[in-house]
Amino acid sequence: MTIRDLLLGRRLSNREGEGRKIGWIAGVPAMGLDGLGSSSYGPEAALTVMIPLGAASLGLVGWVIAPIVALLGILYLSYRQVIVAYPSNGGAYTVAKENLGAHASLVAAAALMIDYVLNVAVGISAGVGALTSSVPALHAYTLPLCLGILVVIAIANLRGTREAGLLFSVPTYLFLLSFLALLAVGLFRMVASGGAPEPVIAPPPLGPAAEGATLWLLMRAFASGCTAMTGVEAVSNGVNAFREPVVREAHRTLTAICLSLGLLLAGIAAVAHGYQLGAMDQTEPGYQSVLSQFAAAVVGRGPVYYVAMASLLAVLCLSANTSFVGFPRVCHMVALDDYLPRGFARSDRRLVFSVGVLFLTLTAGGLLVLFDGITDRLIPLFAIGAFLTFSVSQIGMIAHWRRRQREAGGGHKRALAINTAGAVTTVVALVVITAAKFVEGAWIVTLAVPLTIAVLLWVNRYYRRQNRLLTPRTDFCVDETEPPTVLVAYEERNRMTDRALRFAMTLSPDVVAVHLLRLEGPDEAAEDLPELRDQFAREVAEPLTRAGLKVPRLMLIPAPYREIQGPLLRLVEKIDADTPGRSVAIIIPELVTKHWWQALLHGRRAAQLRAALLEHAGPRLMVVTSPWKSR
Amino acid sequence: MTIRDLLLGRRLSNREGEGRKIGWIAGVPAMGLDGLGSSSYGPEAALTVMIPLGAASLGLVGWVIAPIVALLGILYLSYRQVIVAYPSNGGAYTVAKENLGAHASLVAAAALMIDYVLNVAVGISAGVGALTSSVPALHAYTLPLCLGILVVIAIANLRGTREAGLLFSVPTYLFLLSFLALLAVGLFRMVASGGAPEPVIAPPPLGPAAEGATLWLLMRAFASGCTAMTGVEAVSNGVNAFREPVVREAHRTLTAICLSLGLLLAGIAAVAHGYQLGAMDQTEPGYQSVLSQFAAAVVGRGPVYYVAMASLLAVLCLSANTSFVGFPRVCHMVALDDYLPRGFARSDRRLVFSVGVLFLTLTAGGLLVLFDGITDRLIPLFAIGAFLTFSVSQIGMIAHWRRRQREAGGGHKRALAINTAGAVTTVVALVVITAAKFVEGAWIVTLAVPLTIAVLLWVNRYYRRQNRLLTPRTDFCVDETEPPTVLVAYEERNRMTDRALRFAMTLSPDVVAVHLLRLEGPDEAAEDLPELRDQFAREVAEPLTRAGLKVPRLMLIPAPYREIQGPLLRLVEKIDADTPGRSVAIIIPELVTKHWWQALLHGRRAAQLRAALLEHAGPRLMVVTSPWKSR
Repeated sequence: MTIRDLLLGRRLSNREGEGRKIGWIAGVPAMGLDGLGSSSYGPEAALTVMIPLGAASLGLVGWVIAPIVALLGILYLSYRQVIVAYPSNGGAYTVAKENLGAHASLVAAAALMIDYVLNVAVGISAGVGALTSSVPALHAYTLPLCLGILVVIAIANLRGTREAGLLFSVPTYLFLLSFLALLAVGLFRMVASGGAPEPVIAPPPLGPAAEGATLWLLMRAFASGCTAMTGVEAVSNGVNAFREPVVREAHRTLTAICLSLGLLLAGIAAVAHGYQLGAMDQTEPGYQSVLSQFAAAVVGRGPVYYVAMASLLAVLCLSANTSFVGFPRVCHMVALDDYLPRGFARSDRRLVFSVGVLFLTLTAGGLLVLFDGITDRLIPLFAIGAFLTFSVSQIGMIAHWRRRQREAGGGHKRALAINTAGAVTTVVALVVITAAKFVEGAWIVTLAVPLTIAVLLWVNRYYRRQNRLLTPRTDFCVDETEPPTVLVAYEERNRMTDRALRFAMTLSPDVVAVHLLRLEGPDEAAEDLPELRDQFAREVAEPLTRAGLKVPRLMLIPAPYREIQGPLLRLVEKIDADTPGRSVAIIIPELVTKHWWQALLHGRRAAQLRAALLEHAGPRLMVVTSPWKSR
Repeated sequence: MTIRDLLLGRRLSNREGEGRKIGWIAGVPAMGLDGLGSSSYGPEAALTVMIPLGAASLGLVGWVIAPIVALLGILYLSYRQVIVAYPSNGGAYTVAKENLGAHASLVAAAALMIDYVLNVAVGISAGVGALTSSVPALHAYTLPLCLGILVVIAIANLRGTREAGLLFSVPTYLFLLSFLALLAVGLFRMVASGGAPEPVIAPPPLGPAAEGATLWLLMRAFASGCTAMTGVEAVSNGVNAFREPVVREAHRTLTAICLSLGLLLAGIAAVAHGYQLGAMDQTEPGYQSVLSQFAAAVVGRGPVYYVAMASLLAVLCLSANTSFVGFPRVCHMVALDDYLPRGFARSDRRLVFSVGVLFLTLTAGGLLVLFDGITDRLIPLFAIGAFLTFSVSQIGMIAHWRRRQREAGGGHKRALAINTAGAVTTVVALVVITAAKFVEGAWIVTLAVPLTIAVLLWVNRYYRRQNRLLTPRTDFCVDETEPPTVLVAYEERNRMTDRALRFAMTLSPDVVAVHLLRLEGPDEAAEDLPELRDQFAREVAEPLTRAGLKVPRLMLIPAPYREIQGPLLRLVEKIDADTPGRSVAIIIPELVTKHWWQALLHGRRAAQLRAALLEHAGPRLMVVTSPWKSR
């Protein structure tokens, strides 16, 4: 049992893949943490924009949250349809590829990839930020905490989506249970008290109105609140994680996530009005989040409050898990189309696309280190990526249904209507968000997306060129059947070179043992050349002659520059000239070490020689390794 | 021209080795910087011990410095003899090995190696300490300055001892010139004024006597002053750096170093008395070194003062160069005897033992980082190493002359007397130093030396075991002349696999193309197996049959765990069982990339497969790489 086995679990066979799939109960924590977590910071972000309105914001909060919930509903319906239409490889990338062509699909891919990376950095950073603001002693450890959580999520996902889903289900369901219960109690008291319940602990009073409500301010509040929607598309990207019946499990997961998120959003808007809740300035001392004010108002600061806040903290910290489910799967699809390195398409020992997981961990970790664990400035960026993705997939689905209508001569009207509504609303939302957030950093996305697309296109061009170079233009043909000249790198006679020589003699009658002179440097005691020759004649040549076998030649070549490859390559050139068309094989005896430290004692001469020969090899040179195991 | 060429110079041939040798003019800066630099901190250290004596120290300083100068004279004479006796590989290690046996030689080797490492760290740190105490603004950059100087010295020595000697000759000779001139002027004024010259700038007055002189205090002062002697053995270790006549150049270098050092020591003792100089407490503000007080007293703080102090600073900072000449050469000799990894014995592209240079750079750099650039606490350690080395070589030389006497029936009396005197004095000095410095840290050396010896012995045991395993017990014999079964790793038909297949057919009539199924994971679209088979039959088998050649078999093997090596190794086992005695060769087509980033796009599957096959290979498996160059 190695450390790797302990950490990541044993290697799984292809046949075990089916058993690794998940149902909706594990699907909600695996893919929904981002969506559920954003129920806390979405409304908070909208209310923060509305702080200048003072108490007037209470009358308007419904007008901001309602379109967000409506948008969520439209997205829910349209992603249901995406899942039905593309039940194996869902998501915006496939929808765009199938319906809008390669270029649109790359826009979706780039937006998704950037969004997932940002979501990991921002999600963890926001979670740790909430943690350190409630336990200030931890503030000095912000970055280590961020990286620690990143590593835990990465390891869980390297074990498998299933393991991650099960591991994170406790905080997820605890969060849902406690906040839905708090909302129910709060709403009941509101209704019971005729709309003005008595808070257990009163929230801080709202400030006076510093300015009046303008459409621009409400639009900005809407744009900020839309961050609550990110992560909704994750289910469509992760469809292949579900067990049969795939569509049903995916639908249930999507329903559970969207329903919870919708209830939380609507509920918060309602109780904010009833309990007179507003956002507080985060930079002021004594800051409390809207959800904290709400929980305290409903049940006071007792055990229920602390359980609810702790589960909220956990959900925020773990919201990055959604990216770890979606990102590797998106990259897998993109890599299958040769737009990303092929490694992204490979299932590893745990049947996970581990290259994607590791890439996500490293880039998000890099962002966290770069921003020292505080990534507030990245938040405006990632709603744009999400809505760009939404728009592309909605437009793709419109194309999809219209094609189906043409093929079937009609029908699909309801589906087309839903996706058209989705397309219109998401495009409008995208324009609003981009306009509202452009100076805050949204311009970065407008650079990052084309840049990512350029990289994807460049990778694709590289692969296409390599494929062209590798494609044979004729049928297989053999122009030479003579055995090759075989050279053996021969330092001295030992059991390693004996084996190499013995093998050489089975390959060809034409074997040369090559010994290089003065490899160590000019000051070494003169090598005992006569003894080397004598020993070869006595112990190698003579017994072979007696057995009636052809004797390999021993060739001594000066190595004035103490490099092996130079003289050997010149010898190969000479042989090529003497026997044109015939191949040359160079056998390198190589000590295979058992422990890493043995490499320090044996040097890397065999490996270096091999690398140099391969680098400079002509088309007829083969490099043979004759292994000898050290004990 | 690569960056490496620019930094280190072009590759040199063995034949150029002779032209790379140096004479005494370059030898003094190359090997003498440690000795010359210690002329400043040796007397300073002795006088620091004598601070409590106040003005009474002036009468006693001669009694401390005189035995040090006498000891230097004895060491000088005996090392002259060492050089004559061992003109190719001098030094304590060889002397001990030839005359006292392997164990004594390992004591010398360990002491030398530790001493050289400590000297680098301490020398650079002391130089930078002196620099930052004169330019306090640099104090914050202590560690970067230390590491920067270390890198400069390392690069100079990687270019060659010759380059380092020439590069550092300017500060060395400037230092000698200015301080010998200052001493001459100072002594002349002393004599002219009848022993009490008028200082240009008076040194701070000496404090009152806090305690009386005891033998123990004088012994401690002597022990501290002995740090001046380290580095004297470097010439004997570096003999092979000199051009012909080697002995003459080495003698001249040794003479120049010892004479300068002796003059400086004696001169400083004399002027200290005349000008009433004493050490100051380094931790007090306004601290001035003895040499700074002296220079100011003789010429005031004018240009001459600043040139002299600047050259002193440079010499201190560069004193580590002595180690860079000695350490790699000692390691080279030790490695030739199989007590250190063989890499230490190899001349690199510049005919330098670069493994030793790099090892020294890394360990000394590690110490500097560990102690944050301030290594005062290591200073007591390294006089012990030096005197341990001196003692071993002196005792070895006694054994040497006595053997020569036995062989020649007498003679060598003067030589024997010199080395006996050397042995007695250095052993006494060693005992005094160890006793005086034991609690200050000398105990660390008494642990480090045995530990180093243990490592050297362990390395030797490892090599002896490997040699035993590799030594053939019988003459070369061949039990099998049949060509091997050749397996070709065959992913799909392309020009890379074509080449591998073509090569396989020249090696053996028994060729199998092995294709592994479901390597990428369970979710991939089913591979088009009929098409794979058809293509092989149509494009490979048919043309070969037409040409009357034997057709390779195509074998499809499932790879349920997505590893290539497992199924391949099982196939090899089966073939071994079917055809006992015959070898198996596996040909792996490998894309040889031109740029490092291509590896990211192509993955490392070929390299991983090769490594796994080598690791698990039986004695009859050979791994063949068929290179294909990407463009």
